[in-house]
Formats: sequence, C-alpha cells, structure tokens
Amino acid sequence: MLPGATADREDAAYVVVGAPLDVSTSFQPGTRFGPDRVRQFARTFEDYDHRTDESFSALGVHDAGDVHAWDDTAEYLDYLRGTVTDVVWDDAVPLLVGGEHTVSVAGVRAVEPDVFVALDAHLDLREEYDGNPLSHSTVTRHALDTAEEAYVVGARSGSEAEWERAREADVTVVEPDEVGSWSPSFDGEVYLSVDVDAADPAFAPGTGTPEPGGLSSRAMRRLVRDIAPAASAFDIVEVNDRDDGQAAVLGAKLLREFVFAHADSA
Amino acid sequence: MLPGATADREDAAYVVVGAPLDVSTSFQPGTRFGPDRVRQFARTFEDYDHRTDESFSALGVHDAGDVHAWDDTAEYLDYLRGTVTDVVWDDAVPLLVGGEHTVSVAGVRAVEPDVFVALDAHLDLREEYDGNPLSHSTVTRHALDTAEEAYVVGARSGSEAEWERAREADVTVVEPDEVGSWSPSFDGEVYLSVDVDAADPAFAPGTGTPEPGGLSSRAMRRLVRDIAPAASAFDIVEVNDRDDGQAAVLGAKLLREFVFAHADSA
Amino acid sequence: MLPGATADREDAAYVVVGAPLDVSTSFQPGTRFGPDRVRQFARTFEDYDHRTDESFSALGVHDAGDVHAWDDTAEYLDYLRGTVTDVVWDDAVPLLVGGEHTVSVAGVRAVEPDVFVALDAHLDLREEYDGNPLSHSTVTRHALDTAEEAYVVGARSGSEAEWERAREADVTVVEPDEVGSWSPSFDGEVYLSVDVDAADPAFAPGTGTPEPGGLSSRAMRRLVRDIAPAASAFDIVEVNDRDDGQAAVLGAKLLREFVFAHADSA
Amino acid sequence: MLPGATADREDAAYVVVGAPLDVSTSFQPGTRFGPDRVRQFARTFEDYDHRTDESFSALGVHDAGDVHAWDDTAEYLDYLRGTVTDVVWDDAVPLLVGGEHTVSVAGVRAVEPDVFVALDAHLDLREEYDGNPLSHSTVTRHALDTAEEAYVVGARSGSEAEWERAREADVTVVEPDEVGSWSPSFDGEVYLSVDVDAADPAFAPGTGTPEPGGLSSRAMRRLVRDIAPAASAFDIVEVNDRDDGQAAVLGAKLLREFVFAHADSA
Amino acid sequence: MLPGATADREDAAYVVVGAPLDVSTSFQPGTRFGPDRVRQFARTFEDYDHRTDESFSALGVHDAGDVHAWDDTAEYLDYLRGTVTDVVWDDAVPLLVGGEHTVSVAGVRAVEPDVFVALDAHLDLREEYDGNPLSHSTVTRHALDTAEEAYVVGARSGSEAEWERAREADVTVVEPDEVGSWSPSFDGEVYLSVDVDAADPAFAPGTGTPEPGGLSSRAMRRLVRDIAPAASAFDIVEVNDRDDGQAAVLGAKLLREFVFAHADSA
Amino acid sequence: MLPGATADREDAAYVVVGAPLDVSTSFQPGTRFGPDRVRQFARTFEDYDHRTDESFSALGVHDAGDVHAWDDTAEYLDYLRGTVTDVVWDDAVPLLVGGEHTVSVAGVRAVEPDVFVALDAHLDLREEYDGNPLSHSTVTRHALDTAEEAYVVGARSGSEAEWERAREADVTVVEPDEVGSWSPSFDGEVYLSVDVDAADPAFAPGTGTPEPGGLSSRAMRRLVRDIAPAASAFDIVEVNDRDDGQAAVLGAKLLREFVFAHADSA
Ligand SMILES: [Mn+2]
Ligand SMILES: [Mn+2]
Ligand SMILES: [Mn+2]
Ligand SMILES: [Mn+2]
Ligand SMILES: [Mn+2]
Ligand SMILES: [Mn+2]
Ligand SMILES: [Mn+2]
Ligand SMILES: [Mn+2]
Ligand SMILES: [Mn+2]
Ligand SMILES: [Mn+2]
Ligand SMILES: [Mn+2]
Ligand SMILES: [Mn+2]
Repeated sequence: MLPGATADREDAAYVVVGAPLDVSTSFQPGTRFGPDRVRQFARTFEDYDHRTDESFSALGVHDAGDVHAWDDTAEYLDYLRGTVTDVVWDDAVPLLVGGEHTVSVAGVRAVEPDVFVALDAHLDLREEYDGNPLSHSTVTRHALDTAEEAYVVGARSGSEAEWERAREADVTVVEPDEVGSWSPSFDGEVYLSVDVDAADPAFAPGTGTPEPGGLSSRAMRRLVRDIAPAASAFDIVEVNDRDDGQAAVLGAKLLREFVFAHADSA
Repeated sequence: MLPGATADREDAAYVVVGAPLDVSTSFQPGTRFGPDRVRQFARTFEDYDHRTDESFSALGVHDAGDVHAWDDTAEYLDYLRGTVTDVVWDDAVPLLVGGEHTVSVAGVRAVEPDVFVALDAHLDLREEYDGNPLSHSTVTRHALDTAEEAYVVGARSGSEAEWERAREADVTVVEPDEVGSWSPSFDGEVYLSVDVDAADPAFAPGTGTPEPGGLSSRAMRRLVRDIAPAASAFDIVEVNDRDDGQAAVLGAKLLREFVFAHADSA
Repeated sequence: MLPGATADREDAAYVVVGAPLDVSTSFQPGTRFGPDRVRQFARTFEDYDHRTDESFSALGVHDAGDVHAWDDTAEYLDYLRGTVTDVVWDDAVPLLVGGEHTVSVAGVRAVEPDVFVALDAHLDLREEYDGNPLSHSTVTRHALDTAEEAYVVGARSGSEAEWERAREADVTVVEPDEVGSWSPSFDGEVYLSVDVDAADPAFAPGTGTPEPGGLSSRAMRRLVRDIAPAASAFDIVEVNDRDDGQAAVLGAKLLREFVFAHADSA
Repeated sequence: MLPGATADREDAAYVVVGAPLDVSTSFQPGTRFGPDRVRQFARTFEDYDHRTDESFSALGVHDAGDVHAWDDTAEYLDYLRGTVTDVVWDDAVPLLVGGEHTVSVAGVRAVEPDVFVALDAHLDLREEYDGNPLSHSTVTRHALDTAEEAYVVGARSGSEAEWERAREADVTVVEPDEVGSWSPSFDGEVYLSVDVDAADPAFAPGTGTPEPGGLSSRAMRRLVRDIAPAASAFDIVEVNDRDDGQAAVLGAKLLREFVFAHADSA
Repeated sequence: MLPGATADREDAAYVVVGAPLDVSTSFQPGTRFGPDRVRQFARTFEDYDHRTDESFSALGVHDAGDVHAWDDTAEYLDYLRGTVTDVVWDDAVPLLVGGEHTVSVAGVRAVEPDVFVALDAHLDLREEYDGNPLSHSTVTRHALDTAEEAYVVGARSGSEAEWERAREADVTVVEPDEVGSWSPSFDGEVYLSVDVDAADPAFAPGTGTPEPGGLSSRAMRRLVRDIAPAASAFDIVEVNDRDDGQAAVLGAKLLREFVFAHADSA
Repeated sequence: MLPGATADREDAAYVVVGAPLDVSTSFQPGTRFGPDRVRQFARTFEDYDHRTDESFSALGVHDAGDVHAWDDTAEYLDYLRGTVTDVVWDDAVPLLVGGEHTVSVAGVRAVEPDVFVALDAHLDLREEYDGNPLSHSTVTRHALDTAEEAYVVGARSGSEAEWERAREADVTVVEPDEVGSWSPSFDGEVYLSVDVDAADPAFAPGTGTPEPGGLSSRAMRRLVRDIAPAASAFDIVEVNDRDDGQAAVLGAKLLREFVFAHADSA
C-alpha cells in the first residue's frame, strides 16, 4: 500500500490504481515493477507537507492495489478503463501508477478530459510503433481522440511525422529550455500524465527510454504544482526497477506533490 | 559477433541467430538483452576445447546477428522461422540465441525434428497463458505439433493440466533428481532447446522465472554433451541481464559445448 | 500479498506474518526488505505442486501483511509474539517471514514448541552480541528458554562458547557434511526456523552474514520437506535485498515447500 | 586510510574519525559502509586543489580509522564523544564520517559549538522517532541542547511538529530555493554537519532517506566553502553503499572542500 | 553496430571507431565496455533530430566496429592511429568511442588538428602518471605535440604542475562556473574530445575518475553543438559499465549531437 | 585491516600483503578492488574455528596493507617480490591477496617453492598473451621457472599449446571431475595459489574470466585444508567487485581456512 493511502474506498477523494503493464517498452523493460517501486520508495517521505500545511494521510487517498496486467494490451486497457471509470463515478480523482505510458490511454478514456498534459521527453504522437497501435509511443495521439488539446512538456524527441503532427493547432510542445518561462494555463479540465523520462536520466535513470537533456526534479515538481489545480486526474508512468531508486523516489514524490497541490486548490 | 564465429555464411556448418524476443515473460523481463549478453560473456573463453581437441573458430560457426524483435509474436515467429529455414536449407545447424523461450517455436517449425528435447525447469505444456497461445510457457506444446515426442529434462514446475498432459505417451519428464542416472537415447532427429532456468538460480539468476532446486552447471554441460550427437539444431533461451553474468556465461558455455560435442560426433 | 495466499484470516490454516526487523545485523543490513522480496519473487511460481498434487491457493494460506518494525527489539518481539499467538489460538500455523533471525524469538515464545529446529550456518547460541541480548546470534539460546531441545542443521560457524554450549545434551548440531545422511526425527512438536544463510552464498548471497561451505537449494528443500510433518510453525529469515533475487526466491520456495509438505502430512 | 591523510595523530590539524553507526535508519540501511565508501571514492581525487593552491596532504590531516559501532546508540555516542573530545583537546578539527546522522550528536557534545549548521533535506527536529530519542531524525534537536542556534540548509521535509519547532527563534531554515541567494553569517563558532541527503537523489542516491527537490553538487560545495571559515568541526553523514558511488564521491569531495576552505581561511 | 550507422564504409561521411582501451584507468576500470555500452544505449534514440530537421541514418555514418585493444598502449595507439588515418584520408570525420582517454592521442595524431578541445573534469596535462607517459591523464599534453592550442572545458582537477602548465599561452581552461558565459571560437581546425567525466557524476556515474561539481547534460550538449561546426573529428571517452546507463546514454547522445550539428553546419 | 589480523609485524607468523594489480585482465577488470573486498567480506566471520579449535586472532596474522599497484607490471612484481621476501626472511608465511593472478609470480620468486599448486580454471601456461609475457595467463609458466613442478587443480580451460605444455612431466592437471577422488601429496615445499575462478561462477561470479563447470565452495575448502600443511605460502587472486560478494566471501574464507589448517598442522 502507498504509505498514507489509508482512506477507505468509499470515502476516498483520490484513488491509487497500479497498472503494471510492460509489453511495448522498446528499449529497457521493467515497468511491471513500477507500482511496487513507487510504493516502496514512498516510505521515505514524511506524512506532512510544509508548503501546503497538510498531511497526506488526511487527504483521503485510497490505494486500490494493482490491476494485474497481461499481454493483450487492448483488452487490458478496456479492463483498466473500467476500473478508472469506477473511480471517476465515485467523484474521486484517479492516480494511476504505471506501467508503461500506454496505461494513460485507459485513464484518458475513463476521465474524458478537455486537455491532455504530458510531461514527457517524447511526443508519443506516433500512429503505431513496429505495427503496434497501442505502443507507449502513441499515447498523446490516442489522448487526442478524447481530449481537445494536448500539451507535451519537456519534449525533446520524436519522429519526423510526430513533430509534424505536433505543429497542428491542437498540440503544444514546451521544450526543456522553455519550461522555465512557461506558465501553464488551460481551457477546461486537465488530465496530467507524468512520464518520468521527462526528467534527465540523472534524475530518473530507471526508465524505458532515457533521453538526456531533460528536466531537473525541481522543475518537474514545479510543473506538477502548477498544473494540479486544473487537473482531475493524474498518472505517473514509465518507472522501472533498473536504477538505485532515483526514478521511483521522484515518481512517488510527484504523485504526492500532485495530491497536495490539488487538495490545496480545492 | 560471437567470438570465434568467424565462418562466412555460405561456408558455415553452424549459424548463430539472435532472437531477442521479450514479450511474454511473466515475471522478470530482459531477455531482449540475452543475445548481447551471451556474446559478451563468451569473450571469456579460450578458442580451444581440450576434451574434443578442437578450436571453436575451426568448426565453421557463422554469427548472422539478431533478428530484430517486435511486439507481434505470431508475425515475429513466422519471420524468424524463415531465417532458420534458410539455415537448414543450407545444411547448416541453427544455433538460436533467445530471447524468451517462445522463439524455439520458430526453430522447431523450421527444423521439423522427430524429438524435441528441452532442458527446462518448466514443462511449458500450457495451451495458453493469460489468453496468450504464444507465451513462453507453451513451447513444448507447440513443439509437439511438429515433433513426435518431447523430453523435458530438469523439469520441476508446471500447472496441474501440464503435468497431466505430461503423463501422455509422447512426453517424457526427467526430474532433477533423476538427471544423474538418465542416459539420453532418442528415436530420430533431435531439436535441443536449453532454457537456462533448468539450472538452479545459483547458476543462472538472470532469467525470467527462476526456480530453485535445479541443475548445476556441470549437470547441464553433461546433458548437452550427451544429447548433441543426436541433435540437428540447438537453442539457448531465457537469459536476461538481471544478474552479474552467471546466466550469460553459462548459456555461452553450453552453446559452445553443443558445437564441440556435435562436431566431434560428426 | 504472497501469491496464492488468498484465504480469509478466519478460515486460514496458515498465516503469513511479515516481520521486517533489521536492527542487529552485524554485517550487511537490509532484512527490512525481506518480506517484500520474498513476496515479489514468489510471483515466479506455479500455484500447483506436482509432488504433493496440491495447489498452494487451496491450502488455506492467509497473508496478514507485515508487523511494522521499530528500533526497540524487546518491545517489538512482545508485539510480534502477540500477533503470532493470535494465529496459534486460531489453530493456524504461523509462517513468519523476517527480518533478522531475532524475530524467531517471538515466534517460539508464541508457539511454545518442544523442539526448535534451525537451518542455519550459525549456532546462534550466544548470550549477547556487543552487549545486545536480543541479537540475531542469540536466537537458539532464547529458543531453549522455551523449547526442550534445539537442532542446528547446516551449522558451520560459532564462537568458542557457542560450540561449547552446543555440546550439551539439549543441542544437536548437524554439520553440512552430515546433512546428506541425517534423518530428522524429533520428540514432540517442532518449530522450524530457516535462516537462509544455511545455504551456501552461491544459493543465497543476499543475506546478512554469508558463510561459504553451505547447503545447496536441493538439500535445503529436502530438509524442509522432511521436517515439516513434525512442525507446527515455520519461519524464513535473514533474506535481504543485496543480491539478484537468489536468496528471496529460495526463501519463497522453502516457505511454499513447507506448506505443501505440512498439508500433505496432515 | 583517507588518501592524503598522512599526518601523524600528534601533529594533525584535522582528524578523520569514521563512525559507521547504522541503527536507526528508517528507510534504506547501509550507512555502516559509509566511511569505507567515502575513503574508497576519495581515491579518485588529485592531492592538489587549484582554488586554494594547496595540497591536501600538506594540510595535516590524520585518519584515525573507525570507531566500531554497536547497537546501543546511547553508549556508542558516549564513546564516540570521548574520541572527538580528544581531537578537540589536541586543538585539531574533527572530521567525522558517518554513519547515520545520529553520530553528529556525539560530535556536537564534544565540540560545544555556538551554532549548529546542517545541510540536510530533513529538519531532524523530532523529539523521538518510533520511541527512539536517539534517531537520526532528532539530531538538530539534540544539537540545540548544546548550541545556541541551528541552521538547516536545503531542508524540505519534516513533521508538522518539527516545522513548528523550526519557527522558534533559535532555528533558521534555508529551503532549497533560497539557497542561491543566501549568504551564511553566524554568531560564534560553527559545527558544520553535512547530511548527504541535502543533495538531490540524482547527486546522492546512496542515502537512507532520499528526498527529491534537493541541491546540486555545486550548490553543496559552495555552501561548504562559505561556511568552513566559521567552523571548528565538520561531519559528513548518511552516505551508504546502495548506489554507484555518487553519494560517496560527493561526500568525499565535500570533506576535502571543507579542509581546503578552512585551512585557506586560517 | 551503432543504430542508424548504416552507411557503407566507402560512402561514409562519418566513421565510428570503437577503441576499448582500458589499461591506465587509475580508479575504476571498465572503459573496455565503453563502445558496447554506448552502442547499446543509443538504441533508445529516435533516428530523427528535431532541431536540425535531419535523420541520423541519412547523414552517412558508418560503424567500423572496434579496434581490439591489448596491454601495450604505445603499440595500440600506433595501430589505432592507422585506422583513424584511413578515415581521414577518405575525407570522412572520425568518431572515436573509447575506451580510456588515451585513445584520443591516436585520434589527434591521425587528424593533426590546429586546436584540441577537451570537455574534461581533468586537465590531463601530466607528463606521466606512475611512470606511464601514456596514461589517460597525459592526453592534453600529448595533443599539444600536434595541435597549436588546447582548450579544457569543464576542468576542475589537476596537479599543481598541470595547473602551472595550463597557465601557458597555448592552453585555455574554462572552469565549470565559466562555461555558461563562454562562447567557443577557435583559430583553425578543431579536434573535439569529450571525456564524459566533464559531466557531474550525477549525469555520468559510470566513469573512471568521477569528479563532483561538473556540467549538466544540457551544458555538455550545448558545448558540443557550439563546437561541432569548427571540428573535423570527435571522440567520446571514459564511459564504463559501472552505473545504470547514465554515462553511456549521455555519451551516445553527445556523439549524435555532434554529427547532427556538424552536418547541419556543412 | 583483515579482521583478526592483529599481530604486530615483528611477531607475525603470517603476513597479509594486498596486491591490487589490475592491468592484464582480459575480460572483466576490477581486481584492484580485490584486497578491499576480501577484507570487507571477512567481517562476516567468527574469530573462532570449530574444526581446528583455534581463534584466527590467536594465530599471529599481521595485515601489512596493500602494495600500491601501477601500470608497469615488471617493475611492480619486482617491488612486490621484495615485500614478500621480507616476510619470508622473517620466517613468516606470506598471504598474498590479489589483484590479478600475475602477482603470484612475485610471490613464487620470493618464496622459491619446490612445487607450485594452483587452484584455477585455467592452465595459465601461456608464454605471453597479446604480446604480454606478464599476463595473468602466464603464471604457471613463470612459476615453473622457479619451482620443479606445478599442479593445476580444477583446470578446464587452456589454449592448445597450454594443454600440450601441460602434458610434460613437470605439470599435473587435476580436472574438476577428478578433484573428488584426488589426494594431494607433494615432494617438497608448496606454494598454494588460489585463483578464485577455480570455483564455478555460481560460487564466484566476481572474477575476471569466469568459467562454468567449476568447483563448489566446499570442494575448494577441502583442497585448501588438505594442501595447507605442505605449504609455506598462500595467495588468493582474481577476486573483483563485480558481484554481490560471493567471490570475496569465498576468497576470505579460503584464506582463513589456509591459516587454520596450516597452523593446525605445525
Ligand atoms: Mn511517454
Ligand atoms: Mn517518454
Ligand atoms: Mn521454458
Ligand atoms: Mn523455464
Ligand atoms: Mn541465524
Ligand atoms: Mn545465520
Ligand atoms: Mn539528517
Ligand atoms: Mn536527512
Ligand atoms: Mn580525460
Ligand atoms: Mn577526465
Ligand atoms: Mn589464473
Ligand atoms: Mn583463472
């Protein structure tokens, strides 16, 4: 259980759902251990948050455990969407913990946000990857089937076709060098998806497709704080177990930061 | 390139084919790095083999590199079968380096052996796993679509249905405690498939589904030596990069042992 | 949750209790991650066991989670004893997962066995270690406050005073070279405690005080099988996270082996 | 021996004392290997320092080895205080190398500074942790029994009670975002304690309670340089062996930076 | 093969040469695995580069494999120089992948640049190290036998004699704090040598002599981009396998960045 | 310091000399950390040995620290021979801790034994390797310049020329399968050299050239026990830091076993 996620399901304002999908990772696999790692490294944190003057355990977070993953991604996403939809119908905010980025597709389909905001090194605007239309690198594309707009913050990698797609009106890319001067502001409800590889590999080596030239942990945190008030759902994805905890401890911190900032703005 | 695999493709008596499939691993992923690891740890070996008085580089081994893997296992196996079939048609012995055990299905379909012999901790006699009929745990079952008989040597794990299936006439199970007194002898041509998890996790920690109570490296080697003369194809599978080289160095050694013993008996 | 430990607490025949104590380890710490690791590496196993023709999930095992550990060992053992006592009063067999070996003291006090059997590289017969009477190296000594007799199987290390103590009538030492020819037989009810360091470091590198010259995984398994029928409690201790899973996968296997053998003899 | 710490004890201006205490770490243990790791990774450095135009080996540093740690923290701190007091009485500057942060309590008691300055992610102002009044998270509190004032620089984590305590007049907190614009200046003699977790986990993953959002190695270095002239004692704590050397190499660098800056200002 | 390095040797505009020399590393060895690691972690990258609107595979890069290294550094450098000279004579740009920094001596001798620019934590201006005139710490010194001038960017470590040598007119040192405001500009043709230890150990822990206080991945990338147009050769050195991929992924990224920026300026 | 090596140099019956040479390793480097690792993992052992009824600290072992290694192997061996010669002249038994196997050449030259006994996976009978006559793979050959006879126990690897050389009268090879039935007996004084790679990689993964099919820890121990009484010098070599301690803990154990058995026979 995520430390401090002590609320009952029925009373929960936030519901953690582990989604250890690990099928389409193109380079380094291991996201199936992401939910375990995030929960484990969350043990290092205080319950109390100074900035918001709140305790995590007082904010009504429930940990619903993991939705066991299997090889058929399409079926899995359907099932997972059901689980997230239940959370939404209970007026709780889903906190998805991946697993590969593909799990966000289930989250977005359940939440039906106006805006999809990803912190990600990659545009994830592919139509398919190696013939697979449900690869982690297609997430933003799928999100745009549901949402009106997408922002990809910290992006620095994509195919030529993806960058072309990104030039259309419904996509906004905020490259790492622009992040410092960017002030988030959105039209409508936001789904915030944090691919931990938005961070530089120094801050998150344990991820499937590390990409140097990324954000610091403090830049990531500021983004989460600033975006959380507009968001009605959150996920942290692409954490694996191939480092000494850096990716997991950052992922766990950002999940908590989301909850504190979101609750604080309510 | 595998050290010593210096023969040209057209002159080769043995052809190494890397098959880094890593889709259906149920516990610890990483077999996509198997061919790399096996080649890397093979650098530790002498070219010369004392027992057979032969040099590896003199035995006509060619390394054809890897067949790049993607998510669609059925398609991949078809493609890989084609590659192995080419080897067979050139009268060379295929040496497949996985990748998950599923790649043996392609090997068996290309080679069409009379007998499928697996060194494996697991029966791999499932019909499907989590709905996937091409999981690594179905390999022996698929092999029996082609071969008349199957032997699973070192087996100590399986579902109830698998053990039931194993009781039929076309399957012989040699459990670890029986290996010492077992003398291999087969009717017809053999496909020898070495799932590195037949070894105890002490000897091969870096594998997807480690199973204690397994074989020692010397028992594995003896089996490969004894079976090689009857075999017309070989694979070593389920090596990943999650240890300090134990699984890879054992896998590399067994591949070489196969070649020496096979060539020696020719 | 331990895979397959799906029974409800009230119906359980066996109850897993995690006891992540990690205070007195003299060399390499990390046993606090033992219960997590054992549960994680248990995911690699089939539910079904061929030898006993039983499924783990059908044997009534409940996982009660961990008893959170803190620095005051004496207090912790009291609290843990309470938890184990509840299990005993419910006529269930406790399966303690450490944590350092010291947690067995709580188990023994709750179970009050006639005989304490430890698989251990160390005699653990000290009166204190560095002034600490509740060090992991005092466990057998404490067990003898409750039990009539103690067996230490696989033992190869101890202080002069410990070996002297071991010569008394109530202690039987079975050294590694004698294990092969030893047939367990006891007077009364047995508490079986498996310190994973009884195994050779090849089979269990991730432990606090590794000691070469130990048992193989198959020897350990045979001992657990042979002793289980006489036992009314079991623990597996001293697994840490400082290896590539060898210690944890062995520990998980032995726990399951205990349950299968115990249930089979019932 | 710390490289370059070649002075004899009697002639030493600085005395390194290893204090491998590792009892109360609440998340990841391993600080017992801190002194070893710091000494090992110090081998990577040049003897000469360009900024101060000095050689480390010329500054009179003696390495007194480690004070072997045991479980009774209160007793250990008494003993360690004696060792540090001897250093102080010899007019040498103690350089304590932990071990968990608790060892600073011994240092402070021996040195009796006016001001306690900690670089730390955590306030360490607890009165006790899990009932333990000598936990690493109580260090600043204990320091204030001796010192008049405390500064916690880089702090970003604490319980509600700790942040409340931090609002009192004798505690100054410099949060990470304020560090850049902060100019150290103190009333009286300073004890400088560097908890390596003040750094972001990217720069020091190998520590007991990593906390994202921390300082860079260059910010840490600047702080040590600026504070050293006012200091009469130094420690570096909470380095463990659970990373690829990042924490140890940073810890070793900061210790050396302290000596160069301190000697330069003398 | 480096991903995307698909050009034939005769058509190549850039030629990758692996140089796994690993003899003189003074602290942590393992650079012999540098070329393997760089190639492996380059698999994580897109072929397409957004900034330059180019595809790596379209830029004419050939991977010539590794020049097998042995113990006699002088002989090896001669042989390696020959290989690089062939590249130069074919009007291609050599991209050397070390191996220890010493391999740059071969590169410089082959290329005969006007200016040697190293990104490096160390001056590498020694005349010898432990009696060895071909140590990695002598590279800049050797380069100055051929080149008119040397720049060492990111330098923060050197012996007293090295810093003295650095004060001469033909050497320019740009310390880490000055890098942000430094605009590269050179007289003549440049050989750009990237010792990955110029980066802070957070960004590149897997290197022989890590030195805290270094550059970020983004600062490194900016330098490579800015210097590439003036350069006619490139190397990336001192990457080893002792981390979780951070050093290798950064090294691979910088090599690619060099090619994109160089091609873009042509 | 090796735990229990508390004797003064002048009173010592045994003198530990660390020799962290790490130049010629052909596959995986890191033996420079061998002495550190062996000393560290020796902390896990009891002072007392039950079999011989002796305490290690009572046997007069002195730890002389390390002889700092550099790149010039010939010079280094000369220097090291001097150090070992001093030990011999003081009538103490040298216990060399490598470092690569090459350091045994210095030991043998100092001790001038009648018989050189190596436990080793490799014959080490080369005349040179890659042009280097002082490679680790030439040790037995060099030993035969001094000794009359050589035994290589556990050998399973060598070049054709080495196996040919091994057939001469002055070399006896005991292959792994023969070890069980072999009773050591020698003419004259023995130098016992333990290359940790004689063990199977399961028991010692952390070594430069692992070779499957090796000895167990218990077989190694029995050999050391049986040979020690005839020996006047001992070394343990080829331990590196690339595993989870298995090689180091085995090396440390065998060194102690040698001392106990040697002292016991005196
Ligand atoms: Mn993504
Ligand atoms: Mn991404
Ligand atoms: Mn299999
Ligand atoms: Mn298997
Ligand atoms: Mn024990
Ligand atoms: Mn024990
Ligand atoms: Mn602290
Ligand atoms: Mn702290
Ligand atoms: Mn350099
Ligand atoms: Mn450098
Ligand atoms: Mn050798
Ligand atoms: Mn050897």
